[in-house]
Amino acid sequence: MATTEAYESTDRTTAEKTTAEYLTAALDGRWHEVRERARADLTNDPDFAPHYTPDLAEARNKTLAQMRKLAGRGYAADGFATEHGGTGDTGAAVTSIEMLAMSDLSLMVKAGVQWGLFGGAIENLGTARHHEQYVRPTIDLDLLGCFAMTETGHGSDVQELETTATYDPETREFVIHSPTPSSRKDYIGGAAEHARTAAVFAQLVTGGQSHGVHCFVVPIRDEDGNDLPGVSTSDCGYKGGLPGVDNGRILFDRVRIPRENLLNRYGDVSEDGEYSSPIESTGRRFFTMVGTLVRGRVTVGGSAGAAARVALSIATRYALQRRQFQAPGDAEETLLMDYLMHQKRLLPLIARSYALGFAQNELVSALHDLQAAGDDVDPTDQRELEGRAAGLKAATTWHATRAIQEAREACGGAGYMAENRLTALKADTDVFTTFEGDNHVLTQLVAKELLTSYAEEVREMGPSDWMRFAATTVSDVVKKRTAAQQILQTILDTRQDNEEDGSLFNRGTQMSMFEDREEYLISTAARRLQGAQKREDSAFDAFNFVQDHVLHAARAHIDRVVLEAFVAGIDSCTDEAACELLSDLCDLYALSVIEEDKAWFMSHRHLSVERSKAVLRGINERCRTLRPHAATLVAGLGVPEALLGSAMLDGPGTDAVRDTLLDR
Amino acid sequence: MATTEAYESTDRTTAEKTTAEYLTAALDGRWHEVRERARADLTNDPDFAPHYTPDLAEARNKTLAQMRKLAGRGYAADGFATEHGGTGDTGAAVTSIEMLAMSDLSLMVKAGVQWGLFGGAIENLGTARHHEQYVRPTIDLDLLGCFAMTETGHGSDVQELETTATYDPETREFVIHSPTPSSRKDYIGGAAEHARTAAVFAQLVTGGQSHGVHCFVVPIRDEDGNDLPGVSTSDCGYKGGLPGVDNGRILFDRVRIPRENLLNRYGDVSEDGEYSSPIESTGRRFFTMVGTLVRGRVTVGGSAGAAARVALSIATRYALQRRQFQAPGDAEETLLMDYLMHQKRLLPLIARSYALGFAQNELVSALHDLQAAGDDVDPTDQRELEGRAAGLKAATTWHATRAIQEAREACGGAGYMAENRLTALKADTDVFTTFEGDNHVLTQLVAKELLTSYAEEVREMGPSDWMRFAATTVSDVVKKRTAAQQILQTILDTRQDNEEDGSLFNRGTQMSMFEDREEYLISTAARRLQGAQKREDSAFDAFNFVQDHVLHAARAHIDRVVLEAFVAGIDSCTDEAACELLSDLCDLYALSVIEEDKAWFMSHRHLSVERSKAVLRGINERCRTLRPHAATLVAGLGVPEALLGSAMLDGPGTDAVRDTLLDR
Repeated sequence: MATTEAYESTDRTTAEKTTAEYLTAALDGRWHEVRERARADLTNDPDFAPHYTPDLAEARNKTLAQMRKLAGRGYAADGFATEHGGTGDTGAAVTSIEMLAMSDLSLMVKAGVQWGLFGGAIENLGTARHHEQYVRPTIDLDLLGCFAMTETGHGSDVQELETTATYDPETREFVIHSPTPSSRKDYIGGAAEHARTAAVFAQLVTGGQSHGVHCFVVPIRDEDGNDLPGVSTSDCGYKGGLPGVDNGRILFDRVRIPRENLLNRYGDVSEDGEYSSPIESTGRRFFTMVGTLVRGRVTVGGSAGAAARVALSIATRYALQRRQFQAPGDAEETLLMDYLMHQKRLLPLIARSYALGFAQNELVSALHDLQAAGDDVDPTDQRELEGRAAGLKAATTWHATRAIQEAREACGGAGYMAENRLTALKADTDVFTTFEGDNHVLTQLVAKELLTSYAEEVREMGPSDWMRFAATTVSDVVKKRTAAQQILQTILDTRQDNEEDGSLFNRGTQMSMFEDREEYLISTAARRLQGAQKREDSAFDAFNFVQDHVLHAARAHIDRVVLEAFVAGIDSCTDEAACELLSDLCDLYALSVIEEDKAWFMSHRHLSVERSKAVLRGINERCRTLRPHAATLVAGLGVPEALLGSAMLDGPGTDAVRDTLLDR
Repeated sequence: MATTEAYESTDRTTAEKTTAEYLTAALDGRWHEVRERARADLTNDPDFAPHYTPDLAEARNKTLAQMRKLAGRGYAADGFATEHGGTGDTGAAVTSIEMLAMSDLSLMVKAGVQWGLFGGAIENLGTARHHEQYVRPTIDLDLLGCFAMTETGHGSDVQELETTATYDPETREFVIHSPTPSSRKDYIGGAAEHARTAAVFAQLVTGGQSHGVHCFVVPIRDEDGNDLPGVSTSDCGYKGGLPGVDNGRILFDRVRIPRENLLNRYGDVSEDGEYSSPIESTGRRFFTMVGTLVRGRVTVGGSAGAAARVALSIATRYALQRRQFQAPGDAEETLLMDYLMHQKRLLPLIARSYALGFAQNELVSALHDLQAAGDDVDPTDQRELEGRAAGLKAATTWHATRAIQEAREACGGAGYMAENRLTALKADTDVFTTFEGDNHVLTQLVAKELLTSYAEEVREMGPSDWMRFAATTVSDVVKKRTAAQQILQTILDTRQDNEEDGSLFNRGTQMSMFEDREEYLISTAARRLQGAQKREDSAFDAFNFVQDHVLHAARAHIDRVVLEAFVAGIDSCTDEAACELLSDLCDLYALSVIEEDKAWFMSHRHLSVERSKAVLRGINERCRTLRPHAATLVAGLGVPEALLGSAMLDGPGTDAVRDTLLDR
């Protein structure tokens, strides 16, 4: 099915590098070496070849075996601080888990749950006693954990979780309890079978008073895998995809755990039951805790992006070998990729994959630097990071859903066969728009940050409440560029607003269109919010009245951040031919975004009738320019040959494509 | 999981009917009784309850067992002429198969293959000797057939199939042969396991001359299921969905069949090898044959629509029980359905489901009448029917993909659990956009009909060839309304083109906007085609240059046909309250279509800047108007309680929804 040759690193001397390799290097970014190592690891070991294993028991065993192999190689150490037994390279940790998505999404999710979420909770919410006891066995898989946050009744609004952890000073224990059916922990990865211990989020109650949601380490199974007394786990069974992840449910019936099992970095209870915390506000405390877990969200976005790259690589390579319908006068039938429609289906999605990839790199870099800074983090930077993580997670997972769907359809009946991999990519990633924060809720979170000038007090409020605090003057964050300041300003100064077609290919023009849209949407959203509050009788009605406008503003913000990252990414590319391709891809990305919101640009007179037609012409033009480079562009996405895992690509024509790809 | 009470017919006396029941009756259309019988059958027999059976062997057995049960009830007789042993009610046949989609899509596809495609080939391409021999056992399942058209190398361009059927006058046999790997029959439902006989499409060769694609009855397996000599079948294995359908591949190594096995209605070979046909042109003959098989395409569109209704019913009912986030001052958390965004995610899709449902009804009705007319069919009517079938199949299957995806996401994590059914609906229907004609190719077919004034000679041409024939004056078909002429003209006369918000709710205005767009796009496409031919050097380049414009024109045409059907559907509704809801839904449909193509309307000055903003306001307004009726609207979609098959709908809140639904 896939080539079995050993993975050959693309790190050659400059003279030997292909354009595709330069593209990959640019798109790989700061953790290029980590990505190269992962490509080699996943390619050279047949145990990590993409597989289709629909049976739950088989898939779960396979995933766990893969995890043990990774653990044996010390794969997880990057995610933990040196003093806790890791290497403290957050960027590498996030990047390695993302790369697993190219092999198998169940593996990526399972690794993300064990090391990112469970391990992350221990690492970030715990203190020395927890680090000593749990970090090493978590890395080595001697301790299999799960992350028990979501409940049947509460997923998006986790502040309202119902599970209680009531302190009993008599025995110096917390009593973990599920008081209602809706308080059952649900969809928890690992809870069905493998996890022995859970990081349980519950309302901490002591002396009859609740102090909000905290996290507790709760053993749930014995050595043999039987539920411990008071714990009832059950299996979620089949899902849309991710068969290798054993999602399950947990009910607690007054389960007692030692006081020390509270992860007490942000809140503690003394032996006699007195609560203390360095953060006074319950809401702020909660969001600080959740904020430290932002890594999970970053990883999910990155992994969705990786899956989209695999799908687009498969569909594009198929379109470069599959012919259908003969044009008059031609000896052969026409390649799918030669149809303009087919180019328009795939190339803009490839462009967006690049765009989001560059943005993801900047996010991971910011996350890494922030975590390296330890306790010296500026809270504003932390919140900005969380906002960007939320926005990019939404953008990238939506992109993945769309790109994989299009890739599947673009391969026709062959695309529907499991052996060609696209259907599993679609099924496995489908939940990514939902978990680690529902995309609509996350987009709203972005809007909240934009509209409230980061006022601390709004952070703990529900959606219809915080809107009341939207300030007349909008947060400075709008103006703040996320990528290389100076380049961006230089480019912006070259904007051309004339009516000629070519002006839309001007990067400064594109950037200013993105910026103007964002500013206009945010400021008008703020005004409408205030107006609505005066008119409508309830805060909820006011919120509802402008909800779509507010979400639109947030999406415009994310688009701008992504475009800026693309521009900075081009600047970082060291090869002229590769730069030129990236520049054309960037045009295609920018024009596609404008095209999708073209009615808005026209309605608000940011685009004249004449110019509006030039947008579509520009997209067609760039598709034609990029068509001859299609193989190079997907090779640049950095999915190794062996990880495509698509049977049809071994059909006739594959060799020709492979030759193109390897053409130096 | 589902209610176990017997299905209660909604056919009560007028005084007792609920608004939802009036909606269902209107949407059910001419075969309302067939639908009611199917609802009762599928609800009252637990063997037809929706199920999740991922294992291939189990799923295939279950589906076959269900088929046998249906056959035992004479389920398939409607699809065959009275003189062949059926009842000759084509509309009922299509409608019953469509209704199976509400229970299980594998069953629908398997039934569609056996009775619609295989049976349809026998019925429509065969003559008396075939009808006598095969129709009865096909109905009774004593003969299990498959429809072997698609090959590994050719799916969309079936005129270029490679399988050969060479006549040998010595033995008076045809020799069926697969000369190349790409000529292998592929993805064939039934070929992996159950089918004993195949309707094989192959190039008929006699006396060294090819006469194009014809259909042959070829036995492929013996009684015990072993491949017959020269036949090699294999199993496609797992697919994205449809586990109950045993798709497979067939290779023929010089398999001999009697001369009489040629389905010889449109072309025959005499004993000594002379070819004869009532249709001289090879291409026209081929399209005439394929045209008689249009029923399959109609059924696929209808079934996709049925699956979308199930998904939207589930997601809407979930949104009416699920609460998340508490608004300040409210005692309870807010219902998902009360968020404007959530309304905008689901209600326009519900509106589109109604719209496409009405259009599908008209299509089935036209198909029925045409088939009833037998050989007296006006070829223009036949081609118009084929064009509409192609367009609606594309529109409805794309709608299903989108609606089911949105429904899944709108249910969050719960939506990802197999027990809640949405993921299987998505996986099973995903191939509908591809099979029975790839949607892009079908949309192109619509354009072809529109642009070439139905010139007979262009019918057999490939896409880049026929464009040369595009006439300066566009086909009259554009002007021809598809539904109740008179009502439409009356309504059209009331159009209001003023700038007031309300004017966009005027049906005449909406209709004329749809019509104007279609006319403009078609006439400009024709002009551009001609211009492109003068400028570009090859027909293919000319075609490629305007491909997106041409597809846009076809989509605009389909949108108009659908809107007209909706208008006629409202007219046929006999209850005032139901009419009012339908009218609001129709506004939502029309405005959603305009919103999605708003930039075009503005670019071409069919919508002013001021008015353009009113479109969005109108959509929000209609969402708010329809919100209180959400339960009624989905009840109107006509999916019986027992066929929802979604575990989460038995959760808290379901009873309240059920009460609302039954509120008379």
